[in-house]
Amino acid sequence: MRTPLQHPAGKDGVLQYAGIGGLDLETGGYLPDVVLAYETWGQLDADAGNAVLIPHALTGSSHVARGSSTEPGWWEELVGPGRTVDTNRYFVVSVNMLGGCYGSTGPSSPDAAGLPWGSRFPFVTIRDSVRAEARLADGLGIARWHTVLGGSLGGARALEWAVTEPDRVLHCGVIAATAASTAEQIAFAQAQLAAIRLDPAFNGGDYYNGAPPLAGLGLARRIAHITYRSEPELDYRFGRTPQTAEDPFGAALPAGRGRYSVESYLDHQAWKLAGRFDANSYLVLTEALVSHDVARGRGSLRAALAGTTADFFIAAVESDRLYFPQQSADLAAALPRGTSVHLIRAPIGHDGFLTSIREISGALKREVFG
Amino acid sequence: MRTPLQHPAGKDGVLQYAGIGGLDLETGGYLPDVVLAYETWGQLDADAGNAVLIPHALTGSSHVARGSSTEPGWWEELVGPGRTVDTNRYFVVSVNMLGGCYGSTGPSSPDAAGLPWGSRFPFVTIRDSVRAEARLADGLGIARWHTVLGGSLGGARALEWAVTEPDRVLHCGVIAATAASTAEQIAFAQAQLAAIRLDPAFNGGDYYNGAPPLAGLGLARRIAHITYRSEPELDYRFGRTPQTAEDPFGAALPAGRGRYSVESYLDHQAWKLAGRFDANSYLVLTEALVSHDVARGRGSLRAALAGTTADFFIAAVESDRLYFPQQSADLAAALPRGTSVHLIRAPIGHDGFLTSIREISGALKREVFG
Repeated sequence: MRTPLQHPAGKDGVLQYAGIGGLDLETGGYLPDVVLAYETWGQLDADAGNAVLIPHALTGSSHVARGSSTEPGWWEELVGPGRTVDTNRYFVVSVNMLGGCYGSTGPSSPDAAGLPWGSRFPFVTIRDSVRAEARLADGLGIARWHTVLGGSLGGARALEWAVTEPDRVLHCGVIAATAASTAEQIAFAQAQLAAIRLDPAFNGGDYYNGAPPLAGLGLARRIAHITYRSEPELDYRFGRTPQTAEDPFGAALPAGRGRYSVESYLDHQAWKLAGRFDANSYLVLTEALVSHDVARGRGSLRAALAGTTADFFIAAVESDRLYFPQQSADLAAALPRGTSVHLIRAPIGHDGFLTSIREISGALKREVFG
Repeated sequence: MRTPLQHPAGKDGVLQYAGIGGLDLETGGYLPDVVLAYETWGQLDADAGNAVLIPHALTGSSHVARGSSTEPGWWEELVGPGRTVDTNRYFVVSVNMLGGCYGSTGPSSPDAAGLPWGSRFPFVTIRDSVRAEARLADGLGIARWHTVLGGSLGGARALEWAVTEPDRVLHCGVIAATAASTAEQIAFAQAQLAAIRLDPAFNGGDYYNGAPPLAGLGLARRIAHITYRSEPELDYRFGRTPQTAEDPFGAALPAGRGRYSVESYLDHQAWKLAGRFDANSYLVLTEALVSHDVARGRGSLRAALAGTTADFFIAAVESDRLYFPQQSADLAAALPRGTSVHLIRAPIGHDGFLTSIREISGALKREVFG
């Protein structure tokens, strides 16, 4: 992308594409002719001071809010006309992450020869994605974001923005995310990637001319989804209740027994994700998340954060057992000026950053979007 | 088994076999000519009042202690001459669970035609295994166990013994186990079973004439092992350290990158289990664990426990995030005479019932084996 893009009016929440040229990647790979897919809401001010970037989480998309489309967005409660991130005041941008499957260059994209990248798609880190998005910001005429705000992987992306491009981030919101992916997060991620690779349909990543590895991707999601929810949440919603019209004790053979409702629920989550997401993108973005360590190559965490200029807003879900609130507190304490952690009081677990974001809307309004 | 067995002296910790005849199963299956493999330590008193049954956990075996073999047992710290469960005083018995792969009739056993059961092996519940073990106890001349004591699935087996055979259990020790498998435990179990079934080598369970589904079984173990350890344990031991001589950022391709040490550790756990355990047995015993609900068909939990006569010893690992201490407290509170929960103070997580059993040795000695 060599010429600044014009934001087309009336296209709130509609996918747009920008070519940003070739990208040298942190671990040695190269992607030519990278395209980023993104959505915007609202209008950019003349001084470009009202731009807000909202990075999505692992299997999220750029569709943060409905806008002029009919499809609900994943942070509608937070973003829209009159909402906390008021699109009558702010120009909101969300970019499908490099390596994803919602329009940006990813493993299912064609290479120069017109064939899907598949197994040849390179390792991309969160820092690579920030560098790509910085080029998009250049193209949009955004020298500095008023705010970069995200949850989970989106929070890690926001944090990397503030550290990699310290002069380009005024406020940084890191919700239910850590300074670095932990041993346990790596461990659960590895199990998910092993599930995808175990599916014979995966074929090493080159499955685009055949059936995709739905079962492997579904299993990956199944594992992940349990970690996104708390034990009390699963107990309260499902307990040991059998699925309607099924009997877990009704057959002599294990393969033939009826399901518990929690199994049916996870079957549903597995197939829902498998039907909308690309397994290679799941792999690539999970690897990016595993690679996340804002201090990597920058000395200690404190040293890495020392150069940031952003005002930080840190929040955690109190019942999160994948991104523990204490890890958010450790991040907050390592910031140059320190800060406290806002608690999303919800029993659901990690997914509270999506389902219960209203718990911190007031604080976000006061401290960031006032 | 129609004639009482004689315990052969000098065979402590050596596998023995007993035929217990055909077994009708709870959900409608039938197993003819069931064999139970078991080990014993010490000598049965003339009045058979010193017999202790120690059921093993999911992938455990009957090899609780070394005895006259050279192979270390899994509860050596607790069981042996002069130990808390003093084999100079007590006659200890451990039975490989029905459906397992350490000698008792299981999916790899031959059926009447001499072919492995494989996919045709029936659904067995913990209650089925108790009924089978009761026949073994008859054969050994043990009318009542002084104690039945186990951890995890072994604790669930001990609890079912006390409820299913209330007149045959004097003391019952339930460690790191619940009154019923919870929604989360079912959810993680389902993911593990899906991993085994996803492995193309599984072949629906009929793989005994070919390569076994090692990758699927390994993935199941990988998932399980994370849940057996606490997040702080993984963080303390591994953090984000790369595996020696490997570089997680050293390659452009995700499939080719070096591992983090936590990944190498889980690879090791996965292959260690896959090399010693049968995938179908993992499936059958996991299904038995999923089926665990001591109140099933017996009214409320309190009603189910009302008929027990055993003195209960309940313990939990304080850092357990698979079998939460609160769940042990709920079980303890539902007992006819109530009781308190002994805490195994260890940061490791669920596996503390194995690695830190010494934390409750004193209490066990005082309250059960004094």
